Amino acid sequence: MTLTHEELQRSAADHLLLHFSKQRLDDLLVLDRGEGPYVFDTRGRRYIDALSSLFCAQLGYSYGAEMAEAASAQLTRLPFNTNWATAHPPAIELAERLTGLAPPGLTHAFFTNGGSESVEAAWKLVREHYVAIGQPQRTKAIARDIAYHGVTLGALAFTGVDRFKEPFGTPPIDVTHVSTTNAFRAPDGDDPDAFRTRLLAELEAAIIAAGPDEVALIIAEPVQNAGGCLTAPPGYWRGLRELADRYGILLMADEVITGCGRLGEWFGVAREGVAPDLVSLAKGITSAYAPMGAVVAAERVVQPMVDGGRVLRHGVTFGGHPVSAAIALRNMEIFERDGILENVRSLSGHLEARMRELLSLPIVGDVRGAGFFWAVELVKDDANTTFDQAERDALLRGFLPGRLLEAGLIARADDRGDAVLQIAPPLVSDTALLDDIVDGLHDVLTDAGKKFATG
Amino acid sequence: MTLTHEELQRSAADHLLLHFSKQRLDDLLVLDRGEGPYVFDTRGRRYIDALSSLFCAQLGYSYGAEMAEAASAQLTRLPFNTNWATAHPPAIELAERLTGLAPPGLTHAFFTNGGSESVEAAWKLVREHYVAIGQPQRTKAIARDIAYHGVTLGALAFTGVDRFKEPFGTPPIDVTHVSTTNAFRAPDGDDPDAFRTRLLAELEAAIIAAGPDEVALIIAEPVQNAGGCLTAPPGYWRGLRELADRYGILLMADEVITGCGRLGEWFGVAREGVAPDLVSLAKGITSAYAPMGAVVAAERVVQPMVDGGRVLRHGVTFGGHPVSAAIALRNMEIFERDGILENVRSLSGHLEARMRELLSLPIVGDVRGAGFFWAVELVKDDANTTFDQAERDALLRGFLPGRLLEAGLIARADDRGDAVLQIAPPLVSDTALLDDIVDGLHDVLTDAGKKFATG
Repeated sequence: MTLTHEELQRSAADHLLLHFSKQRLDDLLVLDRGEGPYVFDTRGRRYIDALSSLFCAQLGYSYGAEMAEAASAQLTRLPFNTNWATAHPPAIELAERLTGLAPPGLTHAFFTNGGSESVEAAWKLVREHYVAIGQPQRTKAIARDIAYHGVTLGALAFTGVDRFKEPFGTPPIDVTHVSTTNAFRAPDGDDPDAFRTRLLAELEAAIIAAGPDEVALIIAEPVQNAGGCLTAPPGYWRGLRELADRYGILLMADEVITGCGRLGEWFGVAREGVAPDLVSLAKGITSAYAPMGAVVAAERVVQPMVDGGRVLRHGVTFGGHPVSAAIALRNMEIFERDGILENVRSLSGHLEARMRELLSLPIVGDVRGAGFFWAVELVKDDANTTFDQAERDALLRGFLPGRLLEAGLIARADDRGDAVLQIAPPLVSDTALLDDIVDGLHDVLTDAGKKFATG
Repeated sequence: MTLTHEELQRSAADHLLLHFSKQRLDDLLVLDRGEGPYVFDTRGRRYIDALSSLFCAQLGYSYGAEMAEAASAQLTRLPFNTNWATAHPPAIELAERLTGLAPPGLTHAFFTNGGSESVEAAWKLVREHYVAIGQPQRTKAIARDIAYHGVTLGALAFTGVDRFKEPFGTPPIDVTHVSTTNAFRAPDGDDPDAFRTRLLAELEAAIIAAGPDEVALIIAEPVQNAGGCLTAPPGYWRGLRELADRYGILLMADEVITGCGRLGEWFGVAREGVAPDLVSLAKGITSAYAPMGAVVAAERVVQPMVDGGRVLRHGVTFGGHPVSAAIALRNMEIFERDGILENVRSLSGHLEARMRELLSLPIVGDVRGAGFFWAVELVKDDANTTFDQAERDALLRGFLPGRLLEAGLIARADDRGDAVLQIAPPLVSDTALLDDIVDGLHDVLTDAGKKFATG
């Protein structure tokens, strides 16, 4: 059936449940087609997808024919089989290629269907590891405030956003949340050494308070998404690695957003010169041409389970789906052939410079990020006063979404206590497109400033 | 790259983590291609996939060209966008068509990427429902012993298999597990009325013990997979519906396995003449040609959230993936065009009759199931003595997997305390293929009987 715009609006209201959303929207944005970095709605309006459809569409939308070729070859050969005590060539080849791109020592891949599942699977691996080495009492974890690590109840335990957790009871994992790396709001944020030292001291204190031999995992994003693209001060990740090693804890980089080229590397944590013990991936692993996620784990995490002949008590039917794996493999080939990482590396300086121009607007208090992953923090005045809840509602939920669409831009206005506006352009964007995005933000934020900033 | 059989074995051992499996298998079964109901390994050996690759491959493996056509059309139009406060035509159309096939009142669909995610999403909907109607104290659930409902930590709380849960701490949901509907081992199993009455009385007692106004959900599979295709006595589901209504509890059918034609209906629970409040789906929704899952929910579950303008605090990025949705839509069209449900309905009597012939073998104690979903329970002797753990290990993990492959059959030898062997053939199987499967089982179980049964 081909439904009209009006029929789609009505059918969606009657039948489709939306994610992280109210269930009735006056004018639901229904996207119908994509082209390069652009998407078009059912009214034919064009938008720059400056968010890559939630940080996923690394290649934009014009690689469909090539992806279809890869999908078709697999669909007509072996459309499905599992990784449940069996395997198939695409999953094996993807595991080999993916671990080949990973920081040293990360040798093994477990495939899932998305980010929450990757975090859940990683936790199962962590627990099985400690059971295998005779430290079953390590049941606790350290994560960061406000950080988003997923919504299934295990992943949600790591997530540090209280309002996503409140109706769902006591989390099944005892997680201590420590301060974010948000330098803008930190008293010592302008002194990176002091800031890092304080953050790591707080983290060590949290380990000691939890009981150093009861902590299994430190989980963190190389650049934290929630809160607005929070980069870490230099040396922070080396500090995490040292603390993990000192106390026999595993270190995990949640790279569902920061991986797969977003920061100009397959593994964003590589920029920190540190190899974690586990990495979660999803989103960009296929550039979203098919659902897929992965956990990449170090040899030393896995080996005790292998040596003990232990069964991993975890599995998801579609994990390693051969069509998704074939698309992920093609995605890797395209990244290499078309210089996707190189494009991010060569243009991120320009994007950063253009984003920093926005600091001249009164409503922009901070600009932060890395690679093709940037946020502006919105403030009330030159003293960087934060908006209160009612103001944030009016600005982030009322004004900005509509005004951004009016400007032909899809970006993310997000409220994590502080008001932020985020972009994560497709990694194929050229200078002109990045300029269009920043110019659009400039116009929108100028209007927002007139309406919401007080000076 | 195209790897040889030996290279794939080595690469898998070095890089690929297997699901619910030991991580080193002497001779990993690597499946390379499929054709109709058959799969072929990298040595060129052919197997009947009598398990539909974990209950998924409803259409078998020869619809790839047609699925590729549907996938290509979507990949070249809109390869991805989310259902996060936006939507796209394939997800909307699928929600409308899927709810159109559902039991009365089930009007809304929330899309996920698989079964565990569907169960997690259903629980979030349940909790948001009760918060919206002012009964936030309903935080508990009733499930059944041994039942498998998934592995992410929320879904795992419903799962009744202790050894899958043991290393992962206190479940985040307070779930009471009640008796299964396994009539074979029940003292009153040969009297369906008495059996049903006792099971429902136990379930009501569990509700009362938990506190009737604290219970949010009863979750059950129409035919329970774990334990071996446990059908319910007549009237059991009407009894569940009555208990749920009496105590203001929501009733959920977990149809990840039993849905999408496995029992000859899109929704297996329809055979019981009962409309649940929620249904979880996955696996067969795309016949596994792409990863996808769904929760279908009743209007009355959703409406209080809509009326209150509430945000559903749950979302998964790839949920409703347009390519998966396009494949699910094509799957529905194929079901209708090629008479897939009709095939199951018309041949399930024959399959049942052939399966019941296996009862003549001394090692077969019980045959049970429905549709294209059958199990034999294996016993030691004519008194139906159960095998002990060591014997089950030798039979189910030692002997049967290899012997089944030798017979050219993929089936499932499963240990849930009782020893079972399960089949779930592709729904496109014809009489000759079903006969081949049962004949193969007969040979394998004859050998197993000689080795393991004592009389």
